[in-house]
Amino acid sequence: MEALDLARETAALLPAAEQAFDELRRVSIDGEGITREAFGARETAAQEVIARFARVEGLRVERDRAANLVVSLPGREDEGRFIGVGSHLDSVPCGGNYDGAAGIVAGLLALALLARNGITPPRTVRLLALRGEESAWFGKSWIGSHALLGLLSETDLAQRRADTGRTLLEHLRDVDADIDAIAAREALLRRDAMVAFLEVHIEQGPVLEARNVPLGIVTSIYGNLRHRRIRCTGEPAHAGATPRSLRHDAVVAMSDFIVRLDARWSEWLAAGRQITVTHGIVGTDPREHAISRVAGAVDSTLEIRAENEEQLLAFHELARAEAAAVAEQRGVTFAFDEPIVNLPAAMDPAWVNRLERICGDERIASLRMPSGAGHDAAVFAHAGIPAAMLFIRNQYGSHNPREAMRVADFGLALRVLVRALLGAGA
Amino acid sequence: MEALDLARETAALLPAAEQAFDELRRVSIDGEGITREAFGARETAAQEVIARFARVEGLRVERDRAANLVVSLPGREDEGRFIGVGSHLDSVPCGGNYDGAAGIVAGLLALALLARNGITPPRTVRLLALRGEESAWFGKSWIGSHALLGLLSETDLAQRRADTGRTLLEHLRDVDADIDAIAAREALLRRDAMVAFLEVHIEQGPVLEARNVPLGIVTSIYGNLRHRRIRCTGEPAHAGATPRSLRHDAVVAMSDFIVRLDARWSEWLAAGRQITVTHGIVGTDPREHAISRVAGAVDSTLEIRAENEEQLLAFHELARAEAAAVAEQRGVTFAFDEPIVNLPAAMDPAWVNRLERICGDERIASLRMPSGAGHDAAVFAHAGIPAAMLFIRNQYGSHNPREAMRVADFGLALRVLVRALLGAGA
Repeated sequence: MEALDLARETAALLPAAEQAFDELRRVSIDGEGITREAFGARETAAQEVIARFARVEGLRVERDRAANLVVSLPGREDEGRFIGVGSHLDSVPCGGNYDGAAGIVAGLLALALLARNGITPPRTVRLLALRGEESAWFGKSWIGSHALLGLLSETDLAQRRADTGRTLLEHLRDVDADIDAIAAREALLRRDAMVAFLEVHIEQGPVLEARNVPLGIVTSIYGNLRHRRIRCTGEPAHAGATPRSLRHDAVVAMSDFIVRLDARWSEWLAAGRQITVTHGIVGTDPREHAISRVAGAVDSTLEIRAENEEQLLAFHELARAEAAAVAEQRGVTFAFDEPIVNLPAAMDPAWVNRLERICGDERIASLRMPSGAGHDAAVFAHAGIPAAMLFIRNQYGSHNPREAMRVADFGLALRVLVRALLGAGA
Repeated sequence: MEALDLARETAALLPAAEQAFDELRRVSIDGEGITREAFGARETAAQEVIARFARVEGLRVERDRAANLVVSLPGREDEGRFIGVGSHLDSVPCGGNYDGAAGIVAGLLALALLARNGITPPRTVRLLALRGEESAWFGKSWIGSHALLGLLSETDLAQRRADTGRTLLEHLRDVDADIDAIAAREALLRRDAMVAFLEVHIEQGPVLEARNVPLGIVTSIYGNLRHRRIRCTGEPAHAGATPRSLRHDAVVAMSDFIVRLDARWSEWLAAGRQITVTHGIVGTDPREHAISRVAGAVDSTLEIRAENEEQLLAFHELARAEAAAVAEQRGVTFAFDEPIVNLPAAMDPAWVNRLERICGDERIASLRMPSGAGHDAAVFAHAGIPAAMLFIRNQYGSHNPREAMRVADFGLALRVLVRALLGAGA
């Protein structure tokens, strides 16, 4: 192990990384971008790409009872406890190839590097290639990790996938998950069996790129609060014949609401309160709307993220108050569906320090930073499992087809991950 | 003729009117409302309802070369020239039963009243039950009257119906219109043959109801300017990881544009400039949008109406300027498609005076008013044909399922229409 030249060994694996990303792209290409739908065909095809690579390296490949892919390398110590590494394989519709997949390929190649060099790590390492992380499909995020921890509710299982209209339960059945155990909220993974969860992920914003630092060490993960549907209801009317004073125009009212929240957000930032506010979806009803008809209703989504629980809930209150003010002034109503709330999660301080020390030892520049995006690591952290994340800088953001990552930066993350696994004794 | 008790005779026809409206509703019911799609099955079914009623009354029934239904009663004078009455049979999707149909049933019953009483009017009267008036289907309005006057362009004929995606030309062929003559822009109706066009229509706004007056006499019809698509393009981004300062959020930018136009509209009204401004359709792209993704693009429509051509074009310029200002401030772009412009149209002053005199003679309260909504009468007026309109007050507006009309008010319009036909000599 002392003889291992990690820089050289990780560099030697970069062609394999590029090949893995190419094959993942090939099975999930969708116009300009890629799509790996949660609990669907292209997510499964991506699992098979990873499984094929793992078998070639002589690694053990299996599916857990939530139909996540698991690749493992036994360690020197008690087989019953392990370090989890990994991330998710699904993507948003027409997204990029690295969001999620980067962490899985990093975990896969870390195991491959150890196996190729005949190194048995102190702890057994299990790569978890999780399903269903993105909220775009079922509204619910991090379904794979939730399923493992017995955290999916009946409501969650009844959510319908945005494209198929079929329920999560049906989709779980399609991929041969143990739906009886999941519906019974059985823990498919013992919380004390996984001694840590390490997730490599591309940074989904522009901070590392702007600061010219290749790796980020995540200190905490923002919480979020989501409304899948806010409906503004006014009164449909003829566009030519209804004067402004008698209109209850849902489109103008919703626009007013969105512009007000944007203004409030700007004020909060000026006051140092770090949140994000997003209306990713907005639309009139295609069955009823027309150019010359004052819209009687319009729907939008709302997502608020914050590092701090109190601020998350406070901005939500503010949003409700702004909606009420618009409703009052414009003679419309706003109906908010039940919010889905995910509280902020702290990363494990010991692991944060350890990753930072490794970066220093390897002379890799790194930056401590919060994650505005949510991750499965937060789910494990909330369950009491020490969790940590390494961010790789990326160009052009995430959740879009132009998402990019330099393979050299990926190599640095791989190096840090291997060092972390080698140093992680009982 | 002197012996004709018009009040009694029109009252006697009201049950037939209710029956006609019921049958029209029955063939075009669509959930809460009714749908008669332009150049489609339910519009044709509605034509057949009218044709059946007409034949029972011994009236001549035919289809013109634009596939509009024509019902006629010969007059004492030259058969080659006639007075046109009527309106349109199509509706917006999920609209009301009276928009358009009220004028056709009024024309039908006016002819029936004359025929039942053995009265030959001075002029031949032709009821035109026009197709394709609503812009909801092809973006283009007043297609039936345009076709008759040889005014449909190649661009118009290539417009696709919102629901089927098929072109207007294909739909015209479906209903056996003379598409060669229409494509060649041949006038299917000689402009000098129709000595006047009288259109009864429900008022599509709340003015008559608010003033407690049953009938309106239209002095002019607002022009309009429509964009079927304004696309705001920003930059898609991850909702959690992209700070506000680095976003180019298309939804917020479009909302800003809509709210600014609403504020400008309010200022114009305060300055006495009578316009309407409507964004009937707005939406992110379902193939790309997601709750946790900053929208990279959003589309909306824009419709401006004005009684005055100069104001119509001036507000359009203002809208372009506001879009440019939002684009500059928020780092997005706005792309406007080619606007469809319909200029304002004056109603024939002699006819306006005549209708007002008849109302006075019959002791029916009436109100001179402009029409904010567009009508086929404007198309004929632009072609040099003297045109006039009678509005019937309605409750709950138009272009929505709750649209309503009192049958007694309908009877008053019928009475005025019959008197107008009886008085209209050469």
